[in-house]
Amino acid sequence: MRLAQEGDLAMLLGRGRRRAIFKLKAGKSYHTHHGIIEHAELIGARWGSIVETHLGTPFILLEPSLHDLLLHIRRKSQIIFPKDIGYILLQLSVGPGKRVLEAGTGSGALTTALAWMVGESGEVISYDRRADMHELARRNLSRLGLEGRVTFRLRDLSEGLIDRDVDAIFLDLPRPEASLAHVAQALTNGGVLGCILPTANQVSTLLEAMEAQGFGAIEVVEILLRGYKPVSERLRPFDRMVAHTGYLLFARLLEGALPE
Amino acid sequence: MRLAQEGDLAMLLGRGRRRAIFKLKAGKSYHTHHGIIEHAELIGARWGSIVETHLGTPFILLEPSLHDLLLHIRRKSQIIFPKDIGYILLQLSVGPGKRVLEAGTGSGALTTALAWMVGESGEVISYDRRADMHELARRNLSRLGLEGRVTFRLRDLSEGLIDRDVDAIFLDLPRPEASLAHVAQALTNGGVLGCILPTANQVSTLLEAMEAQGFGAIEVVEILLRGYKPVSERLRPFDRMVAHTGYLLFARLLEGALPE
Amino acid sequence: MRLAQEGDLAMLLGRGRRRAIFKLKAGKSYHTHHGIIEHAELIGARWGSIVETHLGTPFILLEPSLHDLLLHIRRKSQIIFPKDIGYILLQLSVGPGKRVLEAGTGSGALTTALAWMVGESGEVISYDRRADMHELARRNLSRLGLEGRVTFRLRDLSEGLIDRDVDAIFLDLPRPEASLAHVAQALTNGGVLGCILPTANQVSTLLEAMEAQGFGAIEVVEILLRGYKPVSERLRPFDRMVAHTGYLLFARLLEGALPE
Amino acid sequence: MRLAQEGDLAMLLGRGRRRAIFKLKAGKSYHTHHGIIEHAELIGARWGSIVETHLGTPFILLEPSLHDLLLHIRRKSQIIFPKDIGYILLQLSVGPGKRVLEAGTGSGALTTALAWMVGESGEVISYDRRADMHELARRNLSRLGLEGRVTFRLRDLSEGLIDRDVDAIFLDLPRPEASLAHVAQALTNGGVLGCILPTANQVSTLLEAMEAQGFGAIEVVEILLRGYKPVSERLRPFDRMVAHTGYLLFARLLEGALPE
Repeated sequence: MRLAQEGDLAMLLGRGRRRAIFKLKAGKSYHTHHGIIEHAELIGARWGSIVETHLGTPFILLEPSLHDLLLHIRRKSQIIFPKDIGYILLQLSVGPGKRVLEAGTGSGALTTALAWMVGESGEVISYDRRADMHELARRNLSRLGLEGRVTFRLRDLSEGLIDRDVDAIFLDLPRPEASLAHVAQALTNGGVLGCILPTANQVSTLLEAMEAQGFGAIEVVEILLRGYKPVSERLRPFDRMVAHTGYLLFARLLEGALPE
Repeated sequence: MRLAQEGDLAMLLGRGRRRAIFKLKAGKSYHTHHGIIEHAELIGARWGSIVETHLGTPFILLEPSLHDLLLHIRRKSQIIFPKDIGYILLQLSVGPGKRVLEAGTGSGALTTALAWMVGESGEVISYDRRADMHELARRNLSRLGLEGRVTFRLRDLSEGLIDRDVDAIFLDLPRPEASLAHVAQALTNGGVLGCILPTANQVSTLLEAMEAQGFGAIEVVEILLRGYKPVSERLRPFDRMVAHTGYLLFARLLEGALPE
Repeated sequence: MRLAQEGDLAMLLGRGRRRAIFKLKAGKSYHTHHGIIEHAELIGARWGSIVETHLGTPFILLEPSLHDLLLHIRRKSQIIFPKDIGYILLQLSVGPGKRVLEAGTGSGALTTALAWMVGESGEVISYDRRADMHELARRNLSRLGLEGRVTFRLRDLSEGLIDRDVDAIFLDLPRPEASLAHVAQALTNGGVLGCILPTANQVSTLLEAMEAQGFGAIEVVEILLRGYKPVSERLRPFDRMVAHTGYLLFARLLEGALPE
Repeated sequence: MRLAQEGDLAMLLGRGRRRAIFKLKAGKSYHTHHGIIEHAELIGARWGSIVETHLGTPFILLEPSLHDLLLHIRRKSQIIFPKDIGYILLQLSVGPGKRVLEAGTGSGALTTALAWMVGESGEVISYDRRADMHELARRNLSRLGLEGRVTFRLRDLSEGLIDRDVDAIFLDLPRPEASLAHVAQALTNGGVLGCILPTANQVSTLLEAMEAQGFGAIEVVEILLRGYKPVSERLRPFDRMVAHTGYLLFARLLEGALPE
């Protein structure tokens, strides 16, 4: 029987898909539109049990999954969504002990997933030119105890990357083509470059630059997530869905090109 | 400069999306429809370089990514696709040091991704009632040096699970509802159960059983991957796509239920 | 040069996808959040020209297309969307001079499209058990001068259909399977039956009933519409889309069945 | 009871989605991989009945729907698909008595649908610079008795259009932007222009030209059709789908522009 303990991240899940994630600390209380829950009542409670506000409104007490954490990260900018992050992890061969680089940091959703997956023995290097973004990402990471796995570099990519022989690099930048030459210097030969871009025009521009800079084996995909109402006798897709987050590109740094 | 070495897994990528993955071993040769390449020529070659068959047909020499490995796994059964696996990893909070359970093993695509992500300190427990499936998965894992992370259990889930307090369980079974009671015994309170099912009827049946067996916080989703021709001046989706692999369900084992 | 005339239906299209459709009548005025436009100013104006409210806010003056009319129909119930209606027209071979039957009438979006397409020489027969729905549909049709093409039958399908030898029938009912025997009597041999249903369970139930009642050559489809921001240098899908309206089923009334 | 008659178009539907469409003529026979059926046996048979080849293989005898006809048109070029055609009809307000123009004719799938819908009193004007395409389209139309509703113009749009005050124009051309000035002369003020284009780059180029040429109220959409296996107890999407036919653009010819 696993119990919620002080310092754990807890998720309260109410009706109508309401949810909140916070760190348990004796003496604090969580305020909902339907009443207050004292952290002291949650500490020692069983994960998966039903708890109630002082007004009697029930919530499910859960440990947030990585998916929950990524979706509810504190943000100042558009985050990369879990549907995209999961696929990026596989394309970039992220895993325990790996060393991966990303730019820009943004609110740190991808940073969080990368840091989670590389483990204690891995390293995430995260470039951003905005200190406030690093600060936000650092706070998001520290909630999960992951900040020690991330090396932040406060630096615009136009100044070049100071890292070398990186296995995989991911760019969430408006104009990644401008940094491709620098990226090619930091990436190991044969290494993977991933990018996310919202518009088709950016994809076209990047594709052209990738080929000019020696990248090949290029893939362009969109990942779409279609949610269903989880009701046994009335199974159907939700009325609305997120129709677009971004186009994903993946390429390899080549030492030559396939002749046409 | 990283070079291909004996014992490495290598991927050859030709024109028209042809690709092959094999282990480098001096003295062996790789036969294509367009000629032969000696492994000896690949060993010591730079990753990302262009190599040629004895007939002069060029191929790109790459280290396969985890994505490549999952997509080209040796299979006797329908595999779970990378687009789904990436999302499953996040929902199940897989990562270094985690202990996760799956049933059935099948050809071992998900097994491979789980073993990759849990690292040296984690454990994957994989149930299947067919020894030949375990054998196939073991071979797929051993190519990657991951077989030591997986505990195989040759056992039908109808006999019950012998593991307890597992954080996350994934079922790729035709009738997961039949095993829910056993699964609930193996899963920790608040733990995550994931399932993949090809038909809407199976989803309806499982949803009903999940609620009866104390599972809640249920999500049902489909992940769709839409590929684009990676041509800068003629960017467009491919004509055809994989339209369906399966519906994914995720639920938590609760200690009670939200009143209606 | 075509000019807006009294009695015409006019559409005003503002920035941010605001739009309104109304009939031009001298002496009336149209009130927006950004000022008032007198119908008198619109009458005699060129279609496609820019008109302004008394506060100077510009609108485009257009004749509404059939698509516009269907999307902005006055409604009390969920309407069938244009993306679905267009496809239904082809599957039901609707066209000038045809005689088609639908149930229920609902707000009359499909009724409108059917009446538009069958022309003066065709006939639409529309069943509904609710007089208020007939009343609403009649008003929607009469705005377009189409009410003369529709025969309304205030009748529950459980009482049977009084029409015979109909070429094509469309059912927008919650339990179409309950009416299949009656529908088979009204439909000509080889005729087309179309249905729309929101849930997968309803589709399963209807498929079983269709086969039992002698329907075959069944097709089940979903039509998805993905809209793009129409911006040349930043082309991208809209963030959100309508993810589900309903599953469409089409079948033929057979005089036998293909052996398994 | 409706019976197949000499001169009717008939569709034979076999197992595994095999289907053929041909005109019934006594003395002819239809050859399948599973035997021969004499037209004489089909003439006088009931629509919707089961017929057999001389080897005993059963087929369903049906009148092809407009949808069937469009999908199985004789073609030399990529046709516009029914999923797109249905939506185009609504956006272009096609219906009995309307006058619409298209370019190019291609194999005549859209031509057929337009001719069907405008009825005896309407007119379709179809431009193509290739006489062989006109010939093919004419044959496809004449099978349905619709060739009298179509005026063919053997002419490249770069020479200008000779028609004026057309309500709606549809372009299926590789470079529609090159003809926009001519199109604007042929189209009535406020009229609708529709286009289909396979690549995102073409859409961007056309959007820019449309705004420069006085078109507005632009919509860009994709229509996706997802088919399901019509099996009651195993309802699921087909494994594969057509992922892309083209982007659809619709715009109005304006007499001015909304200020930014």
